[in-house]
Amino acid sequence: MKQTARQIADLTGGQLNGDPEIVLESIASLKNAGPRDLTYAEAKFRSEAERSTAGCVISTSAIAGHTSIVVKNPKLAFTQAAAALIAQAHDEPAIHPTAVIGAACSIGANTRIGAGCVIGKDVTMGADCVLYPRVVIYDGVTIGNRVIIHAGAVIGADGFGYVKDGERYVQFPQVGRVVIEDDVEIGANTTVDRGSLETTIIRRGVKIDNLVQVAHNVEIGEHTVIAAQTGISGSSKIGAHSIIGGQVGIGESANLDAHTILGGQAGVLNNKHVRGGEVLWGTPARPLKEFLEQQAHLARLPRWMDELKRKLGFRGNTDS
Amino acid sequence: MKQTARQIADLTGGQLNGDPEIVLESIASLKNAGPRDLTYAEAKFRSEAERSTAGCVISTSAIAGHTSIVVKNPKLAFTQAAAALIAQAHDEPAIHPTAVIGAACSIGANTRIGAGCVIGKDVTMGADCVLYPRVVIYDGVTIGNRVIIHAGAVIGADGFGYVKDGERYVQFPQVGRVVIEDDVEIGANTTVDRGSLETTIIRRGVKIDNLVQVAHNVEIGEHTVIAAQTGISGSSKIGAHSIIGGQVGIGESANLDAHTILGGQAGVLNNKHVRGGEVLWGTPARPLKEFLEQQAHLARLPRWMDELKRKLGFRGNTDS
Amino acid sequence: MKQTARQIADLTGGQLNGDPEIVLESIASLKNAGPRDLTYAEAKFRSEAERSTAGCVISTSAIAGHTSIVVKNPKLAFTQAAAALIAQAHDEPAIHPTAVIGAACSIGANTRIGAGCVIGKDVTMGADCVLYPRVVIYDGVTIGNRVIIHAGAVIGADGFGYVKDGERYVQFPQVGRVVIEDDVEIGANTTVDRGSLETTIIRRGVKIDNLVQVAHNVEIGEHTVIAAQTGISGSSKIGAHSIIGGQVGIGESANLDAHTILGGQAGVLNNKHVRGGEVLWGTPARPLKEFLEQQAHLARLPRWMDELKRKLGFRGNTDS
Repeated sequence: MKQTARQIADLTGGQLNGDPEIVLESIASLKNAGPRDLTYAEAKFRSEAERSTAGCVISTSAIAGHTSIVVKNPKLAFTQAAAALIAQAHDEPAIHPTAVIGAACSIGANTRIGAGCVIGKDVTMGADCVLYPRVVIYDGVTIGNRVIIHAGAVIGADGFGYVKDGERYVQFPQVGRVVIEDDVEIGANTTVDRGSLETTIIRRGVKIDNLVQVAHNVEIGEHTVIAAQTGISGSSKIGAHSIIGGQVGIGESANLDAHTILGGQAGVLNNKHVRGGEVLWGTPARPLKEFLEQQAHLARLPRWMDELKRKLGFRGNTDS
Repeated sequence: MKQTARQIADLTGGQLNGDPEIVLESIASLKNAGPRDLTYAEAKFRSEAERSTAGCVISTSAIAGHTSIVVKNPKLAFTQAAAALIAQAHDEPAIHPTAVIGAACSIGANTRIGAGCVIGKDVTMGADCVLYPRVVIYDGVTIGNRVIIHAGAVIGADGFGYVKDGERYVQFPQVGRVVIEDDVEIGANTTVDRGSLETTIIRRGVKIDNLVQVAHNVEIGEHTVIAAQTGISGSSKIGAHSIIGGQVGIGESANLDAHTILGGQAGVLNNKHVRGGEVLWGTPARPLKEFLEQQAHLARLPRWMDELKRKLGFRGNTDS
Repeated sequence: MKQTARQIADLTGGQLNGDPEIVLESIASLKNAGPRDLTYAEAKFRSEAERSTAGCVISTSAIAGHTSIVVKNPKLAFTQAAAALIAQAHDEPAIHPTAVIGAACSIGANTRIGAGCVIGKDVTMGADCVLYPRVVIYDGVTIGNRVIIHAGAVIGADGFGYVKDGERYVQFPQVGRVVIEDDVEIGANTTVDRGSLETTIIRRGVKIDNLVQVAHNVEIGEHTVIAAQTGISGSSKIGAHSIIGGQVGIGESANLDAHTILGGQAGVLNNKHVRGGEVLWGTPARPLKEFLEQQAHLARLPRWMDELKRKLGFRGNTDS
């Protein structure tokens, strides 16, 4: 939907400089934006902004030779304006005819369900959700409002819990539920297992990237973000406002306080309690500063060992 | 299906205390169980069991004030009883009308195939299997009895094998098969590739979690369990009764003896032979004790280096 | 399609020894090949080749007692011959009736689209592509010729980019495109995100294994191979002819020169520039030689610390 510069200034609460009637039709990066595009520039890219051919630039100060909108946080204002500019009218039906919807489901207003989605029985879904094609929701899952689930995600499969019976493994009952609160986003081919006897809970505002595994009985606190290919083992609790890097592994029944930050590929041990918003890295995960210090010393170790050998006759890997 | 306490005692071979006619309708955790629920309590949760409102408790001794069933392994007995209590009558057809079944397939009695599954040609599947929605089985795959495959899993895709032709890669033929034996369970969005010229084999009783990668020509021995996001490279052999943690990587043509245990995120090198049921961790994977000892010494290294510097004038990362 | 030994010799440019009229119907490994099978043997497997029952062996020299074809690179010649021998006539329609194709798509000649695939709007696809069942292509994706995409892959989902608005995360616009060039192969359940404002590009000849994550704005150079479960974060550039092991993690805006080799589970930091075709391993990734040297010294560290304690009275983990 086309917007004038004035409309965008109003929408973002920014101060307009230049032509208020210029019409913008789309968005683009600073590098690629043309006369019909809105773009944005952080303060440090001011000279690039001046040289750009964008129709309008959102920045922290007026951009010479351009229609611009001055705000405190250009990236956020651009994001808000983009939502209006690229809003699409949908011509297809809200629920694609190839989707399979089970008995006793409740689906809220304006919720869109893509081609090939399979929704089990007794599923409750709020308003304004988007399920991209081929999402599978198992029986009994509860989903809030404005939830976005990307293609291929599987919500509510059985947890991975077994009891040994002699040499065989027998599946422990996996009959719990999944609750996904408002404004959650779930990436493509991500899997969220149902609880075994309890409930797997993803609190409001959580953002989960592609190919993430969320096991049974896990609880993820609100406004936490989890990057691709991370795995969270059964019964772990991730505190609110945490930031979990990609390919992180979190052991069973771990407990991360709110505001925890985990670097990519970090590994948190089973039953570990990560306190008070620490920044951790490595496997086993340890405070970032400690990890970096250890790595730096490890890098120097070969030379120190050489020095010990030369000066003091140490023999290292021989028995002594 | 409702069961009386007496029926559950009979089914589990346990000793009944209290009211044999009490009717149980479902299962729940010790914390949540109500008067119509069966639950279980390990010995250490005896006092919680006494305070619970469960209709019947399976435990290692009688629970005061409750109808209880005494067995040696409460969790196993509960699992067995739960299977009877939560058994569901299916009202849908065994093969969902949206499933696509290729030519010349053989599908055993009581096997259920969910919505949107795609089964290739010449696929043989035994009895009492469950394929959840959107499973894909490529041509020529053989599946035993009582196999459960969760949504989105892909069985029999081409292996990842190429030959260099100048600067280009040409696919080496991937025309082998996949054999999945009885009682195997495969998690959501897991991938099991066909053999190149040989066969990828998953032996009976193997349990595989979500998002696991099993490459071409791999053989997984019976009753082995593999946690989420683990990857097993081409032509590796995993011995029977092994336990493979989450996010483990196993290199090409590795060979793990039976009863191997690998900690989460461990990495086994190409061609490595892991002998005699070792417990390994780290990358490259090494015996657990060794890994932990190295990590402990690494944590102390900064202080030791400081001591070497102060007492002996070592210079560490400078050339000497 | 049956071939005579003579036809295969012609096709591979090899020198024929033995019976030119022998008819071959299929391919098999050296161990399993029978009288109707073509196989190949590297020079070191010459005696196995002599004992085999294969109808014809491709090798580096004539195989006594067998019809054989002599070439310089037996594996490559076998791969080329196999393509002719196992070529299949397709009896199904090129686009499966259960596939969903959006408006304004262009699909080239001989491109096959499997059951349950969902193709969005404005998708361009070249000739001779194969999409296995249940692939999802989002709107606006461009795909070249001879591209193969395995089941469950998702191409063009939104990138994982957010802007903080107070305590909430708001999605940064994800309106860029995906371009996949000729001869690319993409594994089962792999995900390739669209660009945010730019384009995610996979150059010609790239081969990507299963369960790989390719984030927004990534560019992968031609003829690079990427093993299973690797994750490439936003805006990273992977140079041409690189070899990326399994479960590798590449941070945001990393830049790998052409001919880079990364060992399995390696982790490349955000913004890291890997120069000139290095071989790296570990997290953070470092030159292979350095990594191995550090690991070797780490393994000896416990004994050296013991020696320091005994000979010099060092106290290690106490304060000093």
